[in-house]
Amino acid sequence: MAKLNTEKIKQDFPIFNQKINDETLVYLDNAATSQIPKFVEEKVRDFNEKERANVHRGVHALGLRATNQYESSRQKVANFIGANNAKEVIFISGCTDSLNLVAASFGEQNIQAGDEILVSIMEHHSNLLPWQQLAKRKQAKLNFIEINSDGLLDIENLKSKINSKTKIVALTHVSNVLGTINPIKELTDLAHEKGAIVVVDGAQAVGHFPIDVAELNVDFYAFSGHKMFAPTGIGVLYGKKDLLDKMLPYRLGGEMIANVTREGATWAEVPYKFEAGTPNIAGAIGLGAAIDYLQSLDFDLIQKHEQELTSYALEKLKNISGLTIYGPQKSNGRIGVISFNLKNIHPHDLATALDLDGIEVRAGHHCAQPLMASLDTESTVRASLSIYNTKDDIDKLVSSLHEAKEFFR
Amino acid sequence: MAKLNTEKIKQDFPIFNQKINDETLVYLDNAATSQIPKFVEEKVRDFNEKERANVHRGVHALGLRATNQYESSRQKVANFIGANNAKEVIFISGCTDSLNLVAASFGEQNIQAGDEILVSIMEHHSNLLPWQQLAKRKQAKLNFIEINSDGLLDIENLKSKINSKTKIVALTHVSNVLGTINPIKELTDLAHEKGAIVVVDGAQAVGHFPIDVAELNVDFYAFSGHKMFAPTGIGVLYGKKDLLDKMLPYRLGGEMIANVTREGATWAEVPYKFEAGTPNIAGAIGLGAAIDYLQSLDFDLIQKHEQELTSYALEKLKNISGLTIYGPQKSNGRIGVISFNLKNIHPHDLATALDLDGIEVRAGHHCAQPLMASLDTESTVRASLSIYNTKDDIDKLVSSLHEAKEFFR
Repeated sequence: MAKLNTEKIKQDFPIFNQKINDETLVYLDNAATSQIPKFVEEKVRDFNEKERANVHRGVHALGLRATNQYESSRQKVANFIGANNAKEVIFISGCTDSLNLVAASFGEQNIQAGDEILVSIMEHHSNLLPWQQLAKRKQAKLNFIEINSDGLLDIENLKSKINSKTKIVALTHVSNVLGTINPIKELTDLAHEKGAIVVVDGAQAVGHFPIDVAELNVDFYAFSGHKMFAPTGIGVLYGKKDLLDKMLPYRLGGEMIANVTREGATWAEVPYKFEAGTPNIAGAIGLGAAIDYLQSLDFDLIQKHEQELTSYALEKLKNISGLTIYGPQKSNGRIGVISFNLKNIHPHDLATALDLDGIEVRAGHHCAQPLMASLDTESTVRASLSIYNTKDDIDKLVSSLHEAKEFFR
Repeated sequence: MAKLNTEKIKQDFPIFNQKINDETLVYLDNAATSQIPKFVEEKVRDFNEKERANVHRGVHALGLRATNQYESSRQKVANFIGANNAKEVIFISGCTDSLNLVAASFGEQNIQAGDEILVSIMEHHSNLLPWQQLAKRKQAKLNFIEINSDGLLDIENLKSKINSKTKIVALTHVSNVLGTINPIKELTDLAHEKGAIVVVDGAQAVGHFPIDVAELNVDFYAFSGHKMFAPTGIGVLYGKKDLLDKMLPYRLGGEMIANVTREGATWAEVPYKFEAGTPNIAGAIGLGAAIDYLQSLDFDLIQKHEQELTSYALEKLKNISGLTIYGPQKSNGRIGVISFNLKNIHPHDLATALDLDGIEVRAGHHCAQPLMASLDTESTVRASLSIYNTKDDIDKLVSSLHEAKEFFR
């Protein structure tokens, strides 16, 4: 049966050619940032060394080549997420910026006093704060969809909170704490029935399973490159073209205008209306390369690998007495972002102990403080998996947790 | 006498190891983007291959090393621009974004109906549109400082337009069309006397001469990395700490909060309050490396070289009949951004002809349409110099212009 060749994949990533604290690197902080393969680095280097120029500005050879590469990356992103039209793909600095764009432009134009905005309690601050502050500015109401005891979105709770006043439903595709995959298509249908638009934070979804924005029928979809093997500083906002067309620009500057006089200005067409100034050209090209890399691996195999590994990790972790796993206890309907705590050990101490064994996990509130409050904790340890992780990595994690338990006893 | 070793410098930049249209590359589009030296690329690669992790989040070894490098770049930037405190340095996606931040945060909080904002007619759209649209939103008045026939800012005009209603003076340090260096210190003193704050667009200044924000006494100073040998997608906003402290965040999300509940949020200290989400970590590290590279060259020699070359270019260009140079006709008080037109030849046609000889210049309105209108043209050709350009480059430009003149006759 076809399997992901994790040995070969690990060799694609130079970061693994080193020891951490004299131990083999076990990188389990992929929900914060993934590593970057040599292939992507080389494409960025090629651009820098052979084509570097500003885009959409020059008629010279380098400028045209840079523009072609940049726009070809846009088309790759459109194909990758199932957008019907590459003009629906906006390059931006990251997922946080994407979500802020929607709140500042669509939100500012469309939310009025008395309107309601619905988010889930599992949102990362980046998909909570823009809506919370928009609601305050507009005297609108922010409502929360709760989760059930399995760490899944409570659909009945959603149904009770969505109504004709709801204008925006902002949801994460995958929780960055619980790993839960939310049923976006079902939620989109419910929201559209009420006349609300749906904004999805896809930061934790891309790179783990295929995205089809047209099939999901979402209105906006945001993600970052650095969590899917691309360089830092590049992200994407997908938006339905008819919505983007009606929206005011977010930032003002070069290359997003039709005409400027002393008195006023008119704006360029999408997507340029939303790309003021010199974009992260090399970053966009790197994102295109990361998509090429991912597609060379086969998403079916990636999903199968990560699900098997998640299942394996959940079983092993459950056997550690005093260990609490937050979120779904089975590997279906979730990805390999696994948050947990070990009784009487502070998450930061635990993460530090794991680091001494070369195991890199994150400890903290994961930019999801309202979720932490609803889980009745201040912070957790989080191990998050990617394509290069193996059962051996999990065994090392589990063994190091046992040792830490002994040490801190 | 010490001179910049342009031959050696050219070897630092891999872009020059190629032919453009079978000709040696003569890159004269530095005002759009500079090239990137191998040294900077290698520092970014080292980070990607050895330290890549998210910053300020993890207690693990990679996270700590990434954070150290990121913060050490912030300190390098502070030293480079003469900021008293590294907390006054905000990493952001670029100069355009920096200027938008100031307008959206400081501007939104401090401008009221009847207030006045003063910009110069030579602003790039990125330092015009945010103020123009802010003024519209707030029913404030936008005034323009004109230029004189030499392409210099008209100081008497400025004095006549600045008054006690003026709250913000937004000025470019160097014109991206004319090359003019504006007397920022003098203007800052005038503005502060009236109680206005000063926002400077430094996009065309950094990399050409040393900047000292403390000595200039500016309130905000914005620039991009990609115009000073750094990667794309990274820029800086310098702001005086007492102003930044009072300002509301621009974007909302991870790592810029103190505390978040369902109902509200409090913000982190500067600079983190303004750095929501995962920053362009590799970009910031690349910017630090670009500063190291620049400082290895000696700014005195860079300035001397660029001024000599500008002087040489201006003299040679003036000898071409039918050629109009826009901006200062002498090399003092300006840098090597030289805009011109050749009678009866469209700038785009001229740029295309030069490109066939491997000479990369820009043609267009240079995102400065109000300035174009005041110069009574729609567009110009622009040749812009940097550290790797030589007299030979200028000779080729001049020779190609002569040929084009013949061809289009």
